[in-house]
Amino acid sequence: MFPYCKRYRFDPMTMENKDIIIAQATANGIGAVSIVRLSGQGCIEMVNSQFSKQLSQKKSHTLHYGTLKSIGGQPIDDCLVSLFRNPTSYTKEDSIEISCHGSPYIVQSIINTFLQKGARMAQRGEFTMRAFLNGQLDLTQAEAVADLIAADTEKSHQIALEQLRGGYSQKLQELRHELVQLASLLELELDFGEEDVEFAERSQLKATVSALKSEVSKLLSSYEAGNAIKLGLKTVIAGKPNAGKSTLLNALLQDDRAIVSAQAGTTRDTIEEELILEGIKYILTDTAGLHLSEDHIEKVGIEKAKAKLKLADLVLYVVDSSNLSDLNNVISEISDLDYTGKMLMILNKSDISVISDSTLHLEQLEFPYLQCSAMKGSNIKELKSKMSGLVISEEITDSAILTNQRHFDALHKTKIAIAEVELGLQNGLTGDLLAIHIRDCLYQIGLITGEISTDDLLENIFSSFCIGK
Amino acid sequence: MFPYCKRYRFDPMTMENKDIIIAQATANGIGAVSIVRLSGQGCIEMVNSQFSKQLSQKKSHTLHYGTLKSIGGQPIDDCLVSLFRNPTSYTKEDSIEISCHGSPYIVQSIINTFLQKGARMAQRGEFTMRAFLNGQLDLTQAEAVADLIAADTEKSHQIALEQLRGGYSQKLQELRHELVQLASLLELELDFGEEDVEFAERSQLKATVSALKSEVSKLLSSYEAGNAIKLGLKTVIAGKPNAGKSTLLNALLQDDRAIVSAQAGTTRDTIEEELILEGIKYILTDTAGLHLSEDHIEKVGIEKAKAKLKLADLVLYVVDSSNLSDLNNVISEISDLDYTGKMLMILNKSDISVISDSTLHLEQLEFPYLQCSAMKGSNIKELKSKMSGLVISEEITDSAILTNQRHFDALHKTKIAIAEVELGLQNGLTGDLLAIHIRDCLYQIGLITGEISTDDLLENIFSSFCIGK
Repeated sequence: MFPYCKRYRFDPMTMENKDIIIAQATANGIGAVSIVRLSGQGCIEMVNSQFSKQLSQKKSHTLHYGTLKSIGGQPIDDCLVSLFRNPTSYTKEDSIEISCHGSPYIVQSIINTFLQKGARMAQRGEFTMRAFLNGQLDLTQAEAVADLIAADTEKSHQIALEQLRGGYSQKLQELRHELVQLASLLELELDFGEEDVEFAERSQLKATVSALKSEVSKLLSSYEAGNAIKLGLKTVIAGKPNAGKSTLLNALLQDDRAIVSAQAGTTRDTIEEELILEGIKYILTDTAGLHLSEDHIEKVGIEKAKAKLKLADLVLYVVDSSNLSDLNNVISEISDLDYTGKMLMILNKSDISVISDSTLHLEQLEFPYLQCSAMKGSNIKELKSKMSGLVISEEITDSAILTNQRHFDALHKTKIAIAEVELGLQNGLTGDLLAIHIRDCLYQIGLITGEISTDDLLENIFSSFCIGK
Repeated sequence: MFPYCKRYRFDPMTMENKDIIIAQATANGIGAVSIVRLSGQGCIEMVNSQFSKQLSQKKSHTLHYGTLKSIGGQPIDDCLVSLFRNPTSYTKEDSIEISCHGSPYIVQSIINTFLQKGARMAQRGEFTMRAFLNGQLDLTQAEAVADLIAADTEKSHQIALEQLRGGYSQKLQELRHELVQLASLLELELDFGEEDVEFAERSQLKATVSALKSEVSKLLSSYEAGNAIKLGLKTVIAGKPNAGKSTLLNALLQDDRAIVSAQAGTTRDTIEEELILEGIKYILTDTAGLHLSEDHIEKVGIEKAKAKLKLADLVLYVVDSSNLSDLNNVISEISDLDYTGKMLMILNKSDISVISDSTLHLEQLEFPYLQCSAMKGSNIKELKSKMSGLVISEEITDSAILTNQRHFDALHKTKIAIAEVELGLQNGLTGDLLAIHIRDCLYQIGLITGEISTDDLLENIFSSFCIGK
């Protein structure tokens, strides 16, 4: 019925006999323990032939301590072997995990032994790809595995784990299910083409499509925040010279010195600092003071700082409030920056002079502001809380968050196809033509969840994985 | 009877309640899988309280897949938990291994959760120390664990594994057992001090002590080779300028380019290359040409090269055979080096001129030699085989090999004590005085196997381990 909807599913009766793959699963280097992982039909017998204990009759999810031997019969190591049987393993295939002493030499010897026995080196992400191909995970879940491993803050970890546990794809599956229902009714009309019947009531179609559209839009709009959470928020501290930018940077880092790491930037004069607030990573950059200048060389430097601003997810604009007579000057400074993203204005040096809202008509500002003293550390806690609030709205924290570029692209195309369906409905398009646009939507969403996949797509996704996953 | 022989053994009735320790067991960094390990009474219940599945009633050596939660109830990761019950675990205590996604963030979150629940960070080698204290391993075996993890060649791996599996300490235990028998008989004589009886027949004592001495000597003499195998053989290529030293270095490395790594030496002008032959690592250094010179600065350079020779385990002395008229010149060159260790003379450039043994009376050489052409690569295979043969004699490969400095020192002291016993026997010393010297031997060997141990000694040994082992 839907020619695009080809689903790779594990079927022991029809599936080709998969070969046995092997790889180190733990990080490279010396540790107390390393793990070598095998998957594929026959791998239990393969390990059994080199192991001092009988494994053939053992149940799934059992552990066995014994000696692993090389082809020549030399002992390689005393190992702990974990045994998993199809279909209750990660890959849904028979699998073995060998936990050996954490020496690269031993890991290599074990892998070499089983390569000689006929296993082959796993490609990047191949264990997870098998889990996907065998129906253990859908594609968004498989992709979440890589995100989960790379996550280095609470929020990015939370989003990846949520996605791994299906929260993400469940949302997408629901959308797709509604679409399939719509399309089925429309396709039914084709069978009665001559009779001019409408199985799919158009008013109901409109309502469903509109609901779909809003769901897709919500996911799309979460992408910006989702991506920022995943990669860290590029946060630029800007302002005129002597406004207290560097002091503010230090004040922000002070409390969190333990989780801060200095990272050399791309240019010599920039040091980026990492700050983690409420589980979100901020990549802080201090810029050279921004001010009007007739000096040509200085102008170039200022242009550079402005270019950096353009890439920012958040700007903290620092103003010396002890030297502030007219708010219009500041507003004009900021407007000179040509920056349209999220901004927080910081009225610094509140230890010297506190500004009353009414004097300066702060209410006319179009962005949030905060008085603080970077020097004395006062109101820094409030600043941090305000920063978090600016980035992650309540609405976003409660719903599924899009972090994946590929999904964003596909959802964006889904949105375009939905618009076509809506337009068709408005213009009284016939069922067969409407169905074409709906199939477009189904195709795009199917690409996300993996109900539709091509070898190229899979290769592209799994090649970003680490070996052994 | 033997006041020094205090043995730490696991006794559930008397042993103090050990706390629960936790650490990452796998190498640091991002991988597909990481393992966090806990050990100590109550750790199964501790993990159970944060895990989605019931673990309390589960059998030892079983695997459980579920979700691990933080103290606040937030999911941390979907993990595979391996459960081991006292006394069949590595430490002989209840133990848990948590196999999670290989993200440093997740590992940290898991560790933090259990630190909050009352576990504490394991010290270096503490899991293995518990295995030792609980009688799972003796001290030589515990030390072998660290050696095994560090081993990076076939031979060093083989020696460490052999030691881990008891081969090593078995030898030492046998020695100690013979000593204990001797001492028992001597101590028995003390009880009959007035009656002038000899339970320990002196002629038999002499024979046993002599057998012991030869065993200890054999172990001691294996240390040089054992240590070289463990750390790699410092091999210096020496010879006059233009003898073809660098060409020889390249020829040696050629075949094994894949397993060679360049390593910057301590001085700027030295590059050390690693070569692995028949499972043994050679650290090759090419020296500046050695030749007589009146130039002061050149002399300094040559003195430096000579100093490097002094530290060598093996010298390959390269001679240009196409320019060799009198062997006595070469012999005098070599004698100038003041080197007394193992040497192999290489008559290079055999492509230009082959030397007949009779012409130059090669038979008068006191060290092995070989004709080859580094340029053409001829006879390089024979050279490699000759190098291996020089380092590891048949005798050594068949017996236990000493690699540990601490054991060497203790065995050396044992040897001195044995000499005292022998001397005492010669001089007809009474049983009580002989027993003192024998106790010395027992003490020294007990230090090796751990039958005698002090907190300082244990701390010293296990502090060289990695965390999590």
